[in-house]
Amino acid sequence: MPPDAPYSFADLDPLIHERSRLGIVTSLAARPAGIAFTELRALCGLTDGNLSRHLATLEEAGLVATEKSFAGRRPLTTCRITAEGGRRLALHIAALERVIRDGARSIDAATAAQPS
Amino acid sequence: MPPDAPYSFADLDPLIHERSRLGIVTSLAARPAGIAFTELRALCGLTDGNLSRHLATLEEAGLVATEKSFAGRRPLTTCRITAEGGRRLALHIAALERVIRDGARSIDAATAAQPS
Repeated sequence: MPPDAPYSFADLDPLIHERSRLGIVTSLAARPAGIAFTELRALCGLTDGNLSRHLATLEEAGLVATEKSFAGRRPLTTCRITAEGGRRLALHIAALERVIRDGARSIDAATAAQPS
Repeated sequence: MPPDAPYSFADLDPLIHERSRLGIVTSLAARPAGIAFTELRALCGLTDGNLSRHLATLEEAGLVATEKSFAGRRPLTTCRITAEGGRRLALHIAALERVIRDGARSIDAATAAQPS
């Protein structure tokens, strides 16, 4: 980030930062063998439409891969994080750690300034 | 968050989570006496329009207060975080800490699953 814009938080990954996508990518990283669409939907508390939309965005960016198959006669969509997705999540988590450090310092400053 | 949606990250504050607003609220918390609009714009790396739009959203929600005055003959807008804004930022930072814990665990799982 530019030294004159210390609060631009430019290293937060806009693709991953969005709250629903952060949940999707984090849960997929936790289960590298993949998660069925319906289970992922429940884990992330999303609707069909929302999960589909976010998965399409993440897949287009190469962070997630989906694979359609059958479980008996029922169609099964399995979602997996890619190596690039894991790398980008790790960078995003490191950026969030810096945000938290700045935030904790800010809260200390705000607390110190409150009338006691 | 519901026990069956552990990755909904429902306690991330949508008002504060957005990247630009996270920068604005964190920088204002760091300087409880207030920051001039033009300096805040530079600190956050935002345009006039973007900063105005986000400040309006945050002010409407009671997280930030702005005050117009004059410095000599030049109009001066000073932005401050409110007590409610500080409280909400602290809650958001605590929620981010939980996200980071989940994320770090996920990355460990993904790394362990990679072929060596």
